[in-house]
Amino acid sequence: MTSSAADGAVPNPEREFVTGHLDDLHADLDAWLRIPSISADPAHAPDVAGSAEWLAEALRRTGFPTVEVWPTAGAPAVFAEWPSADADAPVALVYGHHDVQPVDPLELWEHPPFEPTRVEGPDGPELHARGAIDDKGNVAMHLLGMRAHLAATGRDTPAVTVKLIVEGEEESGSPNFPDLLREHSDRLRCDVVVVSDTGMAAPDVPSAVTAMRGLADAEITLRGPAVDLHSGSFGGAVPNPLHAMAELLAGLHDAEGRVTLPGFYDTVRPLTDRERELMGRVPFDEQAWLAGPAASRVASGEAGYSTLERIGARPTAEVNGMWGGYTGPGHKTIIPAEAHAKVTFRLVADQVPADLGEQVRAWVAANTPPGIEADVHVPAGGVAPCASDLDSPAMDALLRSIAQAFDTRPDQVLFTREGGSGPEADLAGILAAPLVFLGAGLPTDRIHSPNERVLLPMLHRGAEAAAHLWRELAGVDFPR
Amino acid sequence: MTSSAADGAVPNPEREFVTGHLDDLHADLDAWLRIPSISADPAHAPDVAGSAEWLAEALRRTGFPTVEVWPTAGAPAVFAEWPSADADAPVALVYGHHDVQPVDPLELWEHPPFEPTRVEGPDGPELHARGAIDDKGNVAMHLLGMRAHLAATGRDTPAVTVKLIVEGEEESGSPNFPDLLREHSDRLRCDVVVVSDTGMAAPDVPSAVTAMRGLADAEITLRGPAVDLHSGSFGGAVPNPLHAMAELLAGLHDAEGRVTLPGFYDTVRPLTDRERELMGRVPFDEQAWLAGPAASRVASGEAGYSTLERIGARPTAEVNGMWGGYTGPGHKTIIPAEAHAKVTFRLVADQVPADLGEQVRAWVAANTPPGIEADVHVPAGGVAPCASDLDSPAMDALLRSIAQAFDTRPDQVLFTREGGSGPEADLAGILAAPLVFLGAGLPTDRIHSPNERVLLPMLHRGAEAAAHLWRELAGVDFPR
Repeated sequence: MTSSAADGAVPNPEREFVTGHLDDLHADLDAWLRIPSISADPAHAPDVAGSAEWLAEALRRTGFPTVEVWPTAGAPAVFAEWPSADADAPVALVYGHHDVQPVDPLELWEHPPFEPTRVEGPDGPELHARGAIDDKGNVAMHLLGMRAHLAATGRDTPAVTVKLIVEGEEESGSPNFPDLLREHSDRLRCDVVVVSDTGMAAPDVPSAVTAMRGLADAEITLRGPAVDLHSGSFGGAVPNPLHAMAELLAGLHDAEGRVTLPGFYDTVRPLTDRERELMGRVPFDEQAWLAGPAASRVASGEAGYSTLERIGARPTAEVNGMWGGYTGPGHKTIIPAEAHAKVTFRLVADQVPADLGEQVRAWVAANTPPGIEADVHVPAGGVAPCASDLDSPAMDALLRSIAQAFDTRPDQVLFTREGGSGPEADLAGILAAPLVFLGAGLPTDRIHSPNERVLLPMLHRGAEAAAHLWRELAGVDFPR
Repeated sequence: MTSSAADGAVPNPEREFVTGHLDDLHADLDAWLRIPSISADPAHAPDVAGSAEWLAEALRRTGFPTVEVWPTAGAPAVFAEWPSADADAPVALVYGHHDVQPVDPLELWEHPPFEPTRVEGPDGPELHARGAIDDKGNVAMHLLGMRAHLAATGRDTPAVTVKLIVEGEEESGSPNFPDLLREHSDRLRCDVVVVSDTGMAAPDVPSAVTAMRGLADAEITLRGPAVDLHSGSFGGAVPNPLHAMAELLAGLHDAEGRVTLPGFYDTVRPLTDRERELMGRVPFDEQAWLAGPAASRVASGEAGYSTLERIGARPTAEVNGMWGGYTGPGHKTIIPAEAHAKVTFRLVADQVPADLGEQVRAWVAANTPPGIEADVHVPAGGVAPCASDLDSPAMDALLRSIAQAFDTRPDQVLFTREGGSGPEADLAGILAAPLVFLGAGLPTDRIHSPNERVLLPMLHRGAEAAAHLWRELAGVDFPR
């Protein structure tokens, strides 16, 4: 994965600069990753604020003339802008987030999650820490990328106006982000949004994400007896809410692996033949993928679709948590009063998160037995799915940038779909701008799991591609 | 519920004594109930030991010439013996326990669980506390009962040799009790075991328990991915152990409410027509029962059986606890690595607890999907079911004693079955003695639940019946 002008290839001053300043990138990332900016845990609110301040200072140090920390009703976001001296230059807005997932179960981490640790892996050096790639790595690469762009082009200002919006609540569902976008839509105005919160298919497979799934979540409570009952006195004669919950959740999927909520598939955009062909080109060693973090021997899911299609292009339902009754040591012979479950749904274009509330309620109501009362909580909001245009000039510029960083041709850069979710649909909708995705993650990076990592050679390529991108986008004639 | 010789009925000196010394009973129970002898919680081991010491002292104070605290590998038991001066007198062994259930959820208690509180209820005064009837009330009534027997008969020693064995681990499944019985089988030798850990059908319905269910428990762990996975990256493509657990537990019962473990019903002794007729005589207001602690509008369970039959005479399976994945505030978009469940089975004659291990393992193995690994833990031991002979001389003596205490005829004392479980089958088996049941509890006493109580008039009747029982048993010609 190394190459340079000395090999006889075309000159690549962006790479020269990146390669010469990797220590800066590593030092920045090490400092930032030590801040436990877990947005889901109120106890870490000061850390999330501290993470925003750290990033603001790093952006100022990089040279951004405008850097502001924007408060929200929740965690603060960071905004930065570096205008191009060319008055008509396109405007690109980088999106990322500075908050991270919780770290439990802590005991499964090989190194403390907020003490970044370098580990030599089979594909090169890795940095292990919570947020290493999701999303501090993906944001930090833009610090070095911007410096490389300026150094390589000999400019004082970037070839395109570069803005960044880096929020602090992505791992909590970005509840205040749409309001923030609306409030600051003037200052965030852009011709293209560059999403840096995703990754590529494999270390040797340069690729671009073209879609992300949306997200809706529900919490279901089933209530039976008013209090926990003695299972000897009552067992076998009154409804047990744990039995009812098991039956309810067992019916969440049918025998074909399809989600059984009424109307769930009504607005799902079918895959075209071309999309299936493009997805089929992505090399995917299913057994290796399963044997990795999945640690399973079998794939499962909706019948009639490949694993990559199931993850990227089809909606899903997963029970994320389930609890009720006695969970301590030994046994306690009760019929518990309550059972609980948390369920999230991944959505694809053109599903609407707001539809899920009614669908979940109808499904629970139809599957709650007599004697059990159901309470369904579906938070407003959710995350809409989004998709990029595969044939836009901005996409062409992205593919050229990635190709240069990976020493290949633009038509060799593959298209992938991201199974995860973020506020990208809000960015595209509220700012009325197309999306392109530049991220340095890998499916094997264990994001949201213990031992999250970034593969450092991927991060270096990502920083270089970012540097190329500002030059490549300068030539795009965006409609205005 | 009051009557006396002054009403023109037969003289009843036992009642005279009991009625004249209720303060002693109440004071004893108040002191004992303040000791939080929760055997399931290792932090309360000193309290369980203190509870044994309290009882030993109370028995000495009552006059028992032999009182010993017997250590076990777990919590201590209390043994006492008061030999009859009549060398050939029958020997009766009272069984009870001095440990209590845990008290969570604490917030649902109207009064602190270890501060006994007198409450005027619709059926008379109640005493609220953990252990009020299960089982400290049922044991404490023998202190006053023995004094009433001696006073009423004018004897220095009881008419039968009375022994007590009061264990400290019943609420934890009596793991060391069989060994204790075997170790001390000589000193525990008896002609009849009087079990005082149950109750009657209703305040105005004198009755005798004739059977208790057995118990076996299992903990099931299902494992999927090696670590919690990001539900965006993997959702819909790898097996989710929570889904597998829901499907497994949803299949624990069939559409008729029958337990689906292979072989589960093979050794179940069918109810005879006479037994069904006797059970049918027990007044049972199902709607009132459901509206009480059950707080449900519907009964459920195995098709073809009444609610009382389902509880007393049929085996059942209940999920007591279920957990896995994320259970904190908000949502966490994971496919969890593991799912867990605790299941207990209530058994009836002639099921064998040791058979459950194989049955559960076979059932789990047959219902675990590909990609999920199952781990089944079925502790050795369990509790065997037991049943009394309805037509024995000891049963006749018991019925006469209860009838006197409740001012009725022996043939008006009904037979009930206890849905709960205890080590009674071990007592009967290891000591080779028949069982009779004398207990003052009620189905509405909320045992194992918040606000456990004893109805004091029932406890007073129980103490009187105990006093009558020693006199009545003296005339029984036990085979030796």
